[in-house]
Amino acid sequence: MIRRKRIFEILERGMPGDTASIVVDYGIIIVIVFNIAAVIISSFNDLPDLLKQGLTIFEYISIAIFTVEYGLRVLTAPYKYPDSRFPYLRYITSFMAVIDLCAILPFYLPFIVGVDLRILRILRLFRLLRILKLNRYNNAVEVIAQVFKGEKEKILTTVFMTGLMLLLASSVMYYIENTAQPDKFPNIIATLWWAVATLTTVGYGDVYPITNIGKVLSGVIAILGIGLVALPAGIISSGFIKAISKEEQAAKEGTPKESSPGTKRVCPHCGKEIE
Amino acid sequence: MIRRKRIFEILERGMPGDTASIVVDYGIIIVIVFNIAAVIISSFNDLPDLLKQGLTIFEYISIAIFTVEYGLRVLTAPYKYPDSRFPYLRYITSFMAVIDLCAILPFYLPFIVGVDLRILRILRLFRLLRILKLNRYNNAVEVIAQVFKGEKEKILTTVFMTGLMLLLASSVMYYIENTAQPDKFPNIIATLWWAVATLTTVGYGDVYPITNIGKVLSGVIAILGIGLVALPAGIISSGFIKAISKEEQAAKEGTPKESSPGTKRVCPHCGKEIE
Amino acid sequence: MIRRKRIFEILERGMPGDTASIVVDYGIIIVIVFNIAAVIISSFNDLPDLLKQGLTIFEYISIAIFTVEYGLRVLTAPYKYPDSRFPYLRYITSFMAVIDLCAILPFYLPFIVGVDLRILRILRLFRLLRILKLNRYNNAVEVIAQVFKGEKEKILTTVFMTGLMLLLASSVMYYIENTAQPDKFPNIIATLWWAVATLTTVGYGDVYPITNIGKVLSGVIAILGIGLVALPAGIISSGFIKAISKEEQAAKEGTPKESSPGTKRVCPHCGKEIE
Amino acid sequence: MIRRKRIFEILERGMPGDTASIVVDYGIIIVIVFNIAAVIISSFNDLPDLLKQGLTIFEYISIAIFTVEYGLRVLTAPYKYPDSRFPYLRYITSFMAVIDLCAILPFYLPFIVGVDLRILRILRLFRLLRILKLNRYNNAVEVIAQVFKGEKEKILTTVFMTGLMLLLASSVMYYIENTAQPDKFPNIIATLWWAVATLTTVGYGDVYPITNIGKVLSGVIAILGIGLVALPAGIISSGFIKAISKEEQAAKEGTPKESSPGTKRVCPHCGKEIE
Repeated sequence: MIRRKRIFEILERGMPGDTASIVVDYGIIIVIVFNIAAVIISSFNDLPDLLKQGLTIFEYISIAIFTVEYGLRVLTAPYKYPDSRFPYLRYITSFMAVIDLCAILPFYLPFIVGVDLRILRILRLFRLLRILKLNRYNNAVEVIAQVFKGEKEKILTTVFMTGLMLLLASSVMYYIENTAQPDKFPNIIATLWWAVATLTTVGYGDVYPITNIGKVLSGVIAILGIGLVALPAGIISSGFIKAISKEEQAAKEGTPKESSPGTKRVCPHCGKEIE
Repeated sequence: MIRRKRIFEILERGMPGDTASIVVDYGIIIVIVFNIAAVIISSFNDLPDLLKQGLTIFEYISIAIFTVEYGLRVLTAPYKYPDSRFPYLRYITSFMAVIDLCAILPFYLPFIVGVDLRILRILRLFRLLRILKLNRYNNAVEVIAQVFKGEKEKILTTVFMTGLMLLLASSVMYYIENTAQPDKFPNIIATLWWAVATLTTVGYGDVYPITNIGKVLSGVIAILGIGLVALPAGIISSGFIKAISKEEQAAKEGTPKESSPGTKRVCPHCGKEIE
Repeated sequence: MIRRKRIFEILERGMPGDTASIVVDYGIIIVIVFNIAAVIISSFNDLPDLLKQGLTIFEYISIAIFTVEYGLRVLTAPYKYPDSRFPYLRYITSFMAVIDLCAILPFYLPFIVGVDLRILRILRLFRLLRILKLNRYNNAVEVIAQVFKGEKEKILTTVFMTGLMLLLASSVMYYIENTAQPDKFPNIIATLWWAVATLTTVGYGDVYPITNIGKVLSGVIAILGIGLVALPAGIISSGFIKAISKEEQAAKEGTPKESSPGTKRVCPHCGKEIE
Repeated sequence: MIRRKRIFEILERGMPGDTASIVVDYGIIIVIVFNIAAVIISSFNDLPDLLKQGLTIFEYISIAIFTVEYGLRVLTAPYKYPDSRFPYLRYITSFMAVIDLCAILPFYLPFIVGVDLRILRILRLFRLLRILKLNRYNNAVEVIAQVFKGEKEKILTTVFMTGLMLLLASSVMYYIENTAQPDKFPNIIATLWWAVATLTTVGYGDVYPITNIGKVLSGVIAILGIGLVALPAGIISSGFIKAISKEEQAAKEGTPKESSPGTKRVCPHCGKEIE
């Protein structure tokens, strides 16, 4: 019988050399990718019956795999959180576990509740996020995530101010355009559609003001929209620069550089290391 | 009888532990949020009579609250500006007080002037800005505001140059497209609508050139529009970086951080506080 | 008789205290602003005859003013370029002088050539650029101009690469969409209109691909368009930061800070200077 | 007989003073530019027969020139890669050589394969990229390329996350809008067209949601699109600033500049060059 600790090791990202673990990693990724393909293919009309059946069978198989994986991950939770008093609870409430559950639950719900919630199937796509956990782009994802985390307050404030601006613009625009175009600006909430399209400079062209004052307001909002792009760009820029200067300072102070894997350069002639 | 100073303390942002002050803070915020909801709901057609009556009553109540609040704030102005010779005047002409007055005045105006200026009601939304003064995102708002203040000249210049570009582009485009599309480019002012939609890259699609020269000009303006996004992005980026490096330098030199609220600057000669 | 040197001083930006010079400065600015207003008003249809006549008279007056100004500026060129061997030639070929000439020439041309080049009138708007030379925003304009000058090579390269991308995208798109929409993608040059609208993310909506391959290409171009915004934003950001760090270094090395006007802070209590 | 080494020198970018080499450089550039013009002109309908014949003759000539150039470059490969054991293979598989081959192959293919692959002709436009190798803007191109190379991981991650976001948004939107607009949102792949147009804020206006939930999602995606512009802007900004600070540090430490071409790195142990 395989020990629980070994199962845990296999499920975690594979160390180089641990073939079983790496095989499981890539196996799950492949199942995820095929699942996404299946969701996309299912959205087409007039699929041949054979393909439909194939997709259904593939769904049964992948749900089985994901269910087993979820079960094993819950089972090995104590190894993941060795210091936690309630490791099972902690794992089940973790972000990735909730996503995993969301990806399999929609399949079982019809049997339990008795209704088919087709829309829940799209939650399966959240599985795709796991690809981000892979080795390759890991470092860059981490840096980007840290920058966003470091600038969280400023970004949230920007989002909040954006929401405020949208609400203000919609309210004013509703009073301006409502009488001229009652079908396109019927109330403040509906006017938000115009406000978003203008502030983000998408401009689909289905809703736009026709009165002169409305056009002036629309122009002002569009120009503010440019500031809205500039603000997060500035915040994120400074975040990245902060991250770089931190790294540099760490390097100066004699702390070993956060090593990217395989950094050591070797002279091709004599085989010795070069910085 | 409660002393004026206590009223002032309660109205100001609550210190931790000062329950009355915190309750008043959140109470006013809740009234503001509900007011905004009321404005939004009022914009819908075919509301049931009961809801309409409820909204009217809620309006009376909230106007009463805001009027009392405004009155008390004016009354306690001497505590807010202890060094000012005309504290009442200074408070009444302050930005927040003007907004507060704008939010309640539209209700009283019909009684005074005799006409119902419905459009003035939207000014009530300005109250929302006060939420920005709350504790939570305060620091981020301050940093953003300081960056904008520090780069004020550059931003104003950018806005001015944008206006200039819009005017120039509109004038040229008017001469180009007027004969081809006299209804869409009737004069230079109306052509500004095209210029704004193009320079900000909104592109609703209701107005665009059809002549070849017009298309070339439109393309040039659209590409300049990209520079227009890049310019404030660069300005704001450098502003944030300046703010960070200042902070770092202050930290290095052992000087107490400047930006944290509550740190008062003191004149090195006479020892008194300076704003 | 007023000496030439005095005329030169008056025409140049006025020093504080030199009333005549300042009056002339503002006088010319006012004439420029009214000229712009006149151009805008002239673009409207169905103007009353009286207004039309007024505009014509105003045109005569302002042309007279601008002609005299131009003549005096040419006359005083030796004071502007005291070290130049050909000061007159140097002034006449300078950027501002060419603009000045362009603004008055269209008026005289019909008398000389015998044809009315109405379109040349819009050149008068170039006069507006002179406002940039005014005192107020001068410093910010200078910083922005220096950043653009410092990053000239990179910006030109970006513009060049953008042009290349537009040409490539148009060529490919022409081959893809020509058979499906021969009226909207008739040749490579006409397809540039689509390319510009997509790359700059304006998206008027008058021209877009309908074939699948065309949509894929359009999507790729739109995403590259985002990079196109990011590139100049990055270039300009780093330019501003370079400018700041230069200033700081200059400050460190003991060079006096480039003084912004009125920088010295004074304690309001004791009147002594504070940094 | 001209020696092979001299031919190599002539084909490489001309040193100042080497007239033959410079003439060949500019000659090839002119042929490239005319080729591009020919491609553009050919795309127009109803060309006069004489022009068509001229274009065909020009095509024969330029193909001959490019074929000879390609042959000579292959022939002189040993001088380009003196240390390589397979210089011919290395040259033929190099990026520029593949582009060169792509530019001439479409002409010979009909003779070999027997079919006319007209679409391959557009590959000729890739020749334009060579202009980037010219002297003038070389330095700026190099800096930009280095910044992109240095931030490769982050940029790829951003592209990957963008793709993910597009797929997720399309999947969700398909379920939301499919029943309301089955012709515009027929399946997830077709819905990507909407997702790209919204996330990049192009907004052609041919496809947009009409349901309320769809509009909310569209607004969220458009706002995320702003973040999507801000992220690469921040990455590229920090990349440029990194490049500047490296240069400055190199200047301070007295180390010879690293980035200028021709500075060779030497292994500190054996003294041989390392690429």
